[in-house]
Amino acid sequence: MLTEAARGVYVIAVTPFTDDGRIDEASTDRMVEFYRDCGVTGMTILGMMGEAPKLDTDEAIAFSRRVVKRARDLPIIVGVSAPGFASMRTLATAVMDAGAAGVMIAPPPSVRTDDQVCGYYDQCVSAIGSDVPFVIQDYPLASGVQMAPSVIRRIVTAHASCKMLKHEDWPGLEKISTVRGYEKDGSMRHISILTGNGGLFLDFEMERGADGAMTGYAFPDMLAEVIRLQGKGQRDAAHDLFDAHLALLRYEQQPGLGLAVRKYVLKRRGAIASEAQRSPGTKLSNAALAEVDYLLRRLATRDPRAAGLAD
Amino acid sequence: MLTEAARGVYVIAVTPFTDDGRIDEASTDRMVEFYRDCGVTGMTILGMMGEAPKLDTDEAIAFSRRVVKRARDLPIIVGVSAPGFASMRTLATAVMDAGAAGVMIAPPPSVRTDDQVCGYYDQCVSAIGSDVPFVIQDYPLASGVQMAPSVIRRIVTAHASCKMLKHEDWPGLEKISTVRGYEKDGSMRHISILTGNGGLFLDFEMERGADGAMTGYAFPDMLAEVIRLQGKGQRDAAHDLFDAHLALLRYEQQPGLGLAVRKYVLKRRGAIASEAQRSPGTKLSNAALAEVDYLLRRLATRDPRAAGLAD
Amino acid sequence: MLTEAARGVYVIAVTPFTDDGRIDEASTDRMVEFYRDCGVTGMTILGMMGEAPKLDTDEAIAFSRRVVKRARDLPIIVGVSAPGFASMRTLATAVMDAGAAGVMIAPPPSVRTDDQVCGYYDQCVSAIGSDVPFVIQDYPLASGVQMAPSVIRRIVTAHASCKMLKHEDWPGLEKISTVRGYEKDGSMRHISILTGNGGLFLDFEMERGADGAMTGYAFPDMLAEVIRLQGKGQRDAAHDLFDAHLALLRYEQQPGLGLAVRKYVLKRRGAIASEAQRSPGTKLSNAALAEVDYLLRRLATRDPRAAGLAD
Amino acid sequence: MLTEAARGVYVIAVTPFTDDGRIDEASTDRMVEFYRDCGVTGMTILGMMGEAPKLDTDEAIAFSRRVVKRARDLPIIVGVSAPGFASMRTLATAVMDAGAAGVMIAPPPSVRTDDQVCGYYDQCVSAIGSDVPFVIQDYPLASGVQMAPSVIRRIVTAHASCKMLKHEDWPGLEKISTVRGYEKDGSMRHISILTGNGGLFLDFEMERGADGAMTGYAFPDMLAEVIRLQGKGQRDAAHDLFDAHLALLRYEQQPGLGLAVRKYVLKRRGAIASEAQRSPGTKLSNAALAEVDYLLRRLATRDPRAAGLAD
Repeated sequence: MLTEAARGVYVIAVTPFTDDGRIDEASTDRMVEFYRDCGVTGMTILGMMGEAPKLDTDEAIAFSRRVVKRARDLPIIVGVSAPGFASMRTLATAVMDAGAAGVMIAPPPSVRTDDQVCGYYDQCVSAIGSDVPFVIQDYPLASGVQMAPSVIRRIVTAHASCKMLKHEDWPGLEKISTVRGYEKDGSMRHISILTGNGGLFLDFEMERGADGAMTGYAFPDMLAEVIRLQGKGQRDAAHDLFDAHLALLRYEQQPGLGLAVRKYVLKRRGAIASEAQRSPGTKLSNAALAEVDYLLRRLATRDPRAAGLAD
Repeated sequence: MLTEAARGVYVIAVTPFTDDGRIDEASTDRMVEFYRDCGVTGMTILGMMGEAPKLDTDEAIAFSRRVVKRARDLPIIVGVSAPGFASMRTLATAVMDAGAAGVMIAPPPSVRTDDQVCGYYDQCVSAIGSDVPFVIQDYPLASGVQMAPSVIRRIVTAHASCKMLKHEDWPGLEKISTVRGYEKDGSMRHISILTGNGGLFLDFEMERGADGAMTGYAFPDMLAEVIRLQGKGQRDAAHDLFDAHLALLRYEQQPGLGLAVRKYVLKRRGAIASEAQRSPGTKLSNAALAEVDYLLRRLATRDPRAAGLAD
Repeated sequence: MLTEAARGVYVIAVTPFTDDGRIDEASTDRMVEFYRDCGVTGMTILGMMGEAPKLDTDEAIAFSRRVVKRARDLPIIVGVSAPGFASMRTLATAVMDAGAAGVMIAPPPSVRTDDQVCGYYDQCVSAIGSDVPFVIQDYPLASGVQMAPSVIRRIVTAHASCKMLKHEDWPGLEKISTVRGYEKDGSMRHISILTGNGGLFLDFEMERGADGAMTGYAFPDMLAEVIRLQGKGQRDAAHDLFDAHLALLRYEQQPGLGLAVRKYVLKRRGAIASEAQRSPGTKLSNAALAEVDYLLRRLATRDPRAAGLAD
Repeated sequence: MLTEAARGVYVIAVTPFTDDGRIDEASTDRMVEFYRDCGVTGMTILGMMGEAPKLDTDEAIAFSRRVVKRARDLPIIVGVSAPGFASMRTLATAVMDAGAAGVMIAPPPSVRTDDQVCGYYDQCVSAIGSDVPFVIQDYPLASGVQMAPSVIRRIVTAHASCKMLKHEDWPGLEKISTVRGYEKDGSMRHISILTGNGGLFLDFEMERGADGAMTGYAFPDMLAEVIRLQGKGQRDAAHDLFDAHLALLRYEQQPGLGLAVRKYVLKRRGAIASEAQRSPGTKLSNAALAEVDYLLRRLATRDPRAAGLAD
């Protein structure tokens, strides 16, 4: 079960599809092994970058079961954000029964005021049960919902089952400092903070007090190593490695397009068989493919992980 | 099957719940008979005011089956808007198999440009199949999506299975005139236009060329009579009847609160057993209840349908 | 100077233009007299429905001076919402120097959390000065900003110069009750509450504790009479009068289109010489004109104020 | 006057303030010389990052006059986006009279459909005059307005005075390719395309057909050199230089916070005397200052321009 001690990389897993749009079970298994070999400490599935809305409920549950089983000891967090609480409960119950470690929930765009945000999470806990560990997903760029740090504190204080903040506010470094400040001044218990935003600020997020990353960059092994280096106090080395990847990482973080880049690189790395997305998906143009290949070739000169990946 | 000849009142049905949150099957049957007795020509279920997001997939399908069966000859349109196409397809296929007449789809807030709106409906038709009659729901206040009249024409022209526009732009009278103008100038084939917005402009919408109403005001019999009167050219009588209801109709059209008003009045009229909403729902305060009762008492002096309903 | 004792109708004045787009000074004077004769207790100028964004700073100041001078003892509130504090300060200072009673400020769409809303008003007070009486404009439909009742209390408590809430949340009756409840339980000092939304809920807003209306419906004399009748406890008479106007009032409340209706009726009533709007404005189609005339004719049978106005 | 042949770096200038909030005229002059020495080919003032909304009209005009005069032969583009056309006209007329080369306009959030976007620019041209060269600012992240490439073509085709697209859609590389494709297939005349987004994709934007950058990164000399290198076909050298700056550039591109970073670095580079922003502004925390200094020190090892800048 997910606890507030969670650290390291919880990779946002893609959902592998075959070229004709079915879930690719063989690639699912292979992907889990790939992520494990990258040194991740957990996985998050059925997030936005996992094309969750493109699965129907039965598919979502079946995919979750397969990943959980294959991942064995690796904790799996499942995104259960839904337009209504009945669907949220159905999915959360099914995946927890299947052995998931916890669930992740983002608020819908309609909640605005502080009370509305807090009230929304109250209702979520009523729906999924107070024994199910959950992650607050704080992603204003996608959700349109602004959560003040004090609102996060209210949710954490109200619900013992809140174990983690997925932090992807932008800009967000001060938010990490503020939330960690609440712990220091004793006004909030400790929770795990993993950061998103494609990893674009991971270098400094670790220095501000994050416990790791929850993002899906196609080199999760790099993310894991940056976190390790920061943990050992090797600041310059951490930044050197991070900076080597920054041009590609930035390219992959483009909204909409980014998933196509990510799946393409994961395919080149052997993690999945096809970069296919379910409709509606984005295809890389020839120009974009050439740009990614160019970035991979440049990266290979600084990080051997990228060697031989470009066409 | 739904055709472009649809007219009259397609009432937006509520979903009846018991006080402990289960779907109330007995009330479902009773409600169908109540609506039939009101003179509706069809029903729309699983719309926003039908609390659709609060049902999980299995519940939505079971409820649709029950309504379709009970409604017999009355055509049933089912709202299948969903965050992804897999869920949309699953639901659309199930309800069409069960005998629904067609489905209704609103675009998600993320589509913005004309091409994006048209492209979205292209993908919907790919998902549900080109043989499934569908309704465009044009409701900018809720969806955030603005559809120019020319965009509606593009969708209608591209897809023979588009049979109806649910019109609830606001303001919207000129939009009806423009779309009907396309038919007159031969640039678009005829489709059915039913109007929403709680009926707040039904009096003039009929005069602009609408074929009827698709809304859920708790006196659908009044809506049906206004439509009949307009059809017979009895303009003043139509407005007199409409105006008698306007104070209550306006009160019921308040976002969020409106559904509580509607269910309360439907309960008083004997259509359903309980005004319960599934969480998250809105309860009428004592002040609001007293206001609705006051409006019902005032209405009773002008329309016998309202007699004896207030507490 | 504006105080928390303000009551009655603060009419949202239009800005009269000539057909070629200049501010019509003769009509400005005539309009002020017209509103005075309607029994308003104050006026609000340069609101959204006053086409404020279409005036440049010099015009806005000149227009304000003219109205203030002509209105003599009638208090004038000036809308000073602006994208930046420098423009807000410039305008507020100029109009207060000219004799305005206070200013009105709506927050920009970018503020979201409770702290952001409160912080915004803190900055406004720094910009305009703590001696300038101000009105909170709470209009989520236009601003996108949701203000919880507790946020209004925080602003009122923080700033002695906050004298009034212009209430146009929708739905909003419970909000009035909640804010008045704060006064009753001693957690907030009294402020004036005037309601907007075109007057669409004025009948019940008065019963919930509002002090009057701040809206621009073309029959402000009706609004004033409804308020008087409610004040004297003649509830049924108040609703009868209100309901007689509701069909037209609703028609005038349509976003965008409404101002064209309002100016047309004000012209027919002799308040202004032309219904011209500055670009970008909305023109009534022939169909819409005929609809307004029809509504006026119907209204005339129930309220002599409307007699002879239709073409 | 601005033409479609514009190329290179049009730097988005900051507006220098003194610590007590007045416009700093000496720094304004110094800044213009600094930018000139950086090799920019033009300047854009009164953009969002120029704190334009914090100036009142008189200040905006005075500042524009000073910059235009000091810049001599360097063309100056002035942001004139405004909530209304009267203010837009007033400002545009004043700055063109003062010698500006053109103006830049972003649409307001309220325009949505293709026709609305095109209609908005029609009205702008009516307001400012068809002889005033203008730039379309396409910045959906800030404006909320999505402009399809075909909409840009419609505006360019309708208005000979449209000379440039400031491109900052995100993601945006395909949009550049599409617009340039219109020129190749003869369906649109050539316009200048300068790119924004803080320069985050400048490396590839040049390869897709952009003519340069319009952004305010505190090392405009680096931007200019990247553009020169790309122009000479030295692709790897261009990317090497760009990548050296990417960690800092990304840090500066954070919404809200970025301007504080930019002004701090410009101060360290001697371009302005103070990093002060007018209220409401953002101050760098001590942690953030240390992060910027760390990035500058790291940058100095790869680009001598950054030498000695960190504290």
